[in-house]
Amino acid sequence: MPPAPLPQLLDELAELLGQMCTTVANALYRATAALLDNRERLAQQVIIGDVAVDALRARVEGIATDALLFHAPVAGDLRTVVSAIRSAGDIERMGDLALHVAQVVERGRRLPPEVCGDFAEMGRLAVQLGRKAAEVARTRNVVMAVGLESDDDAMDVLHEHMFGVLMDDAWPHGVPTAVDVTLLARYYERFADHAVAVARETVYAVTGQTPEALAL
Amino acid sequence: MPPAPLPQLLDELAELLGQMCTTVANALYRATAALLDNRERLAQQVIIGDVAVDALRARVEGIATDALLFHAPVAGDLRTVVSAIRSAGDIERMGDLALHVAQVVERGRRLPPEVCGDFAEMGRLAVQLGRKAAEVARTRNVVMAVGLESDDDAMDVLHEHMFGVLMDDAWPHGVPTAVDVTLLARYYERFADHAVAVARETVYAVTGQTPEALAL
Repeated sequence: MPPAPLPQLLDELAELLGQMCTTVANALYRATAALLDNRERLAQQVIIGDVAVDALRARVEGIATDALLFHAPVAGDLRTVVSAIRSAGDIERMGDLALHVAQVVERGRRLPPEVCGDFAEMGRLAVQLGRKAAEVARTRNVVMAVGLESDDDAMDVLHEHMFGVLMDDAWPHGVPTAVDVTLLARYYERFADHAVAVARETVYAVTGQTPEALAL
Repeated sequence: MPPAPLPQLLDELAELLGQMCTTVANALYRATAALLDNRERLAQQVIIGDVAVDALRARVEGIATDALLFHAPVAGDLRTVVSAIRSAGDIERMGDLALHVAQVVERGRRLPPEVCGDFAEMGRLAVQLGRKAAEVARTRNVVMAVGLESDDDAMDVLHEHMFGVLMDDAWPHGVPTAVDVTLLARYYERFADHAVAVARETVYAVTGQTPEALAL
């Protein structure tokens, strides 16, 4: 079978990256619901579902390799292929982080009530960033891509606030719970960071510039 | 100026990836010394030095792009270029993690004495993994690359042990110190994971297989 034409391969890459982002955003949505409501069965579904993300990454890399091998793309097309390889790595990691949240639930750990609101909000922001990254990957909308950075600033504020709660002398839940909360907060923050990285990759692929250089 | 021949570009990639790994291993070595001996000036040097890693990554990506653009490599050469792009991402992240360790020191936080031995050992293992990854990247020695996985198992054992210490009812240092120790332990563990990822990339580039499929 002859290889597909380059524009078709590039479209497939955009579609698959979008699908990967949607998949990991849904995984984090469910992992967060499992965390807030202590639903261990739901957490197990998230854990089982992570193989789908790894399979999508393998497909992205296969198509990217075909594009390089059969079409020797140049300029923006080459940037698109290289950035697809890098983005797939970021999105796979987002899936791992959703999995880590689910694993905390699976181990039977509970969130103390006073941080549930913060985690609900971190979950909402991170899932929203994942879904926006999906849209950016599919549509290659540079203006939308640049917008992800300010959503990520909101995540950083929440993350700092969470550490303030933990560091307070009045924290009544002991060290083991503090360790869980510390790691969980980090998983959400890193998920958001990778979503922003996917958007930055798209900006670079489309324009050959970083978001800062564009000053959009 | 005409582009350099492909073998020369591939040699440059191997050399630069080795240099990146050595740079981040040295950064973590110094960050760990700063952590164990409360040396804030040394920590600041690590923080300032991280830009060198980012610059090396940019050079790797520039050379990889030249290789794709001017030589349209196939088979093992193509795998080598693609894996160089991915490895550079992993190694840049290792540099960020060394930086995070240094930032904890810079903020004036102190390790409690009973975990200093564990962190000395995690630091030793992680630096060793970084240096082995440098050697693997330079020499493309597949047998050595596969060996990194067992070093990483030792890191995971240490990491689990550290959590045991934290979760013990007798932990006397309070929550803020527990939060620092939790994040620091995670930085070392992730540094080691990325070193293993670099070695796996090399195995894939050289053989077209994962370490598991080779069963070395």
